[in-house]
Amino acid sequence: MLVLTGMERQMTADFKDALSAEMPDLEIAVGPVEDRPERVEFMLSWAPRADEVARYPNLRFICSGGAGVDGILRVPNLPPDLPIVRLVDEILTQRMTHYVVHAVLHHYRQTNHYEGAQLRAHWAPLDPRAIETSRVGILGLGALGSDAAEKLLALEFSVAGWTRRPKTVPGVTCHHGPDGLRALLAGSDILVCLLPLTAETLGLVDAKLLDRLPRGAYLINPARGGLVDDAAVLAALDSGQLSGAALDVFNEEPLPPDHPYWSHPGVAITPHMASRTHVGSAVPQLAENVRRARAGQPLINQVDRAAGY
Amino acid sequence: MLVLTGMERQMTADFKDALSAEMPDLEIAVGPVEDRPERVEFMLSWAPRADEVARYPNLRFICSGGAGVDGILRVPNLPPDLPIVRLVDEILTQRMTHYVVHAVLHHYRQTNHYEGAQLRAHWAPLDPRAIETSRVGILGLGALGSDAAEKLLALEFSVAGWTRRPKTVPGVTCHHGPDGLRALLAGSDILVCLLPLTAETLGLVDAKLLDRLPRGAYLINPARGGLVDDAAVLAALDSGQLSGAALDVFNEEPLPPDHPYWSHPGVAITPHMASRTHVGSAVPQLAENVRRARAGQPLINQVDRAAGY
Repeated sequence: MLVLTGMERQMTADFKDALSAEMPDLEIAVGPVEDRPERVEFMLSWAPRADEVARYPNLRFICSGGAGVDGILRVPNLPPDLPIVRLVDEILTQRMTHYVVHAVLHHYRQTNHYEGAQLRAHWAPLDPRAIETSRVGILGLGALGSDAAEKLLALEFSVAGWTRRPKTVPGVTCHHGPDGLRALLAGSDILVCLLPLTAETLGLVDAKLLDRLPRGAYLINPARGGLVDDAAVLAALDSGQLSGAALDVFNEEPLPPDHPYWSHPGVAITPHMASRTHVGSAVPQLAENVRRARAGQPLINQVDRAAGY
Repeated sequence: MLVLTGMERQMTADFKDALSAEMPDLEIAVGPVEDRPERVEFMLSWAPRADEVARYPNLRFICSGGAGVDGILRVPNLPPDLPIVRLVDEILTQRMTHYVVHAVLHHYRQTNHYEGAQLRAHWAPLDPRAIETSRVGILGLGALGSDAAEKLLALEFSVAGWTRRPKTVPGVTCHHGPDGLRALLAGSDILVCLLPLTAETLGLVDAKLLDRLPRGAYLINPARGGLVDDAAVLAALDSGQLSGAALDVFNEEPLPPDHPYWSHPGVAITPHMASRTHVGSAVPQLAENVRRARAGQPLINQVDRAAGY
C-alpha cells in the first residue's frame, strides 16, 4: 500500500488518480491509514507529521512530492535507514528555468521602468543595460541550477555558479566552498538561489552575503524562503545594495498580507508558483521506485541524508 | 566622404565617433553637406529625405542605420542602381531575441495576473498554462526570426514559422506562401511579428489574419508598426480574440498619449526599445562595405530592392 499525506488536497487527488492508472495493482490510500497500518510500504509526501511516519512499521521509502526534501528531513526521529527519494521531474525543471529566465530578462530589460511609464502614457526609452554588467551567479548547480545556467548561456548571458563541492558545468564559471562563495558574489549582478534547504543553507542569504554583491544587484529566489533572511533583504533593498528582487518563496507562506515585500518597489512577488510538481511526469518515477523496492533493487533519485539533498 | 543623416542625434554622434576611430582616413560629415556634395560617396541613414539623396551624385551605397530598410526604400526617385545595404548586427539580434523570449514568458507565465494580485497583497496561485497550448508562430524567419526560434526551442516551446519563400530552420515547422500563412495562424497561440516592412507586409496583421488565430491568442510585435492594422488589433483585444499583446513599434511614434493601447488591459507597451542598433557592432560592417566599395568588390548584406529586404 502507498499512502499519500502532507500535500495539498488537489495535488493529493491528482496523484491518487494518476497512480491508480499507472499501477492498478497498487493499493493507494490518503493518510492517515488507521486500519492495519502495517500494510503501508510507501509514502508520498511534502511534509509528513512525525506521528504518521512512526505509525507505519513497514515503510520502505518516503518519496518527496517535489524536488526538495527539507519537509521530510525535518521530521523528528526519522528512522535512520529509511530511504528518502525525490522527484527529478523534467517539467518541474523546465518551469523553474522559465521562471529564472523570465526574472533575469524582466530585470535586465528594465521592465519595471516601462510598466511604470505605460501607466502614465509616457514614451520614455532608456539606454539598455549592457549584458557585460548583467552577470548571473547561481547558488546551486543541481538539476535546476544547471538547466537554468544552460538556457541563460544560450541567451548569451555570462553565468557563474556555486556549489558545496567542486563541480563542472560547460560554459559556467564554477566556484565552490566558502572562498568560492565570496568570488561568486563579487561577480554576480544578478544572484539566483537554486539551493536545497538544509542545515547549512538555512539563512545563507544574510546581510553579510548581500554586502558582497556588487551595489544594485538583483536577487531571484524561487527555491526556498528559508534560504533568505528577510530583514537583511529588506534592508539591502532600502539601502540600494539590492536594486530589486523576484521572490517566489517565503519564510511564511502564504506571505502575510501586511508583509513589507508586497508593496516594496522593485520586488516582484509570485505565490510559490515558479514550478510545481507535474503529476504526469512524476508518477512514472514513483512507480519505478515501487517496482525497484519490491524487487530489492537500488532506488532512483535517493537522497544523501547527511548532505540533505 | 561618408554622410550621416536621418538618424537620432545621439546615434548620429555615436556613429561619428566610432567611425572616426575605426577609419581615420575616411572623412565623415553630418548631413546635409552643402559644400561640394560630389565628395559624398557613402550614406548612413534610417530615413533620408529625397532631396538629400538627390544632392549627392557620387553616392556608392546607402547603409541603413538598423536591420530594416523601409525608411530608405520609401524615398521617392531612389536611383534604381544604387546599392542599399543593411546592418546585420549580432547584438541587435541578441536584444531582439531577449525581447521576444521575455514577452513569450511574460504571457505564458501569467505575469499580468501576478502583478495585479501583488497590488492587492493577494496570494493567488493559478494553474499554470500548458506549454502544449502555448505554441509560438513567428512571421518571418530572417536573422531575427531564426534566432528567436532557436532560443524558444531551447526553452522547449513548440515553434513554427512563416516566410514568403520556402525555408528550412532546424526544429521549426516551416510554412510559406499564402496557404502556409493560414496553417501557421491556426497553430499559433502566440504570434510573433519579425517581418520587414514592405509593400507586401504593410497592414498584414489585419482583422482577417487575427480571426484565423486560435481564440485568446497573444500578439508580439517588435518589428514595425506598419505591419499592424491598429483598429483590427484593438477590436480583437476587445472581443477576446486576442488575450493581450506586447507592442514595441507603432504606426505613429512616439505613440500619442491618448492612444487606446496605453491603457488597454493586457497590452504591454515599450517605446521602440526592443532592439536598437549597437554602434560598436555595426561600425566594422560599415567599414567593411566602404573598403569593398572602394576596391570594387561585392558589398555584404546588400538588400534585394525588389523584395524590399
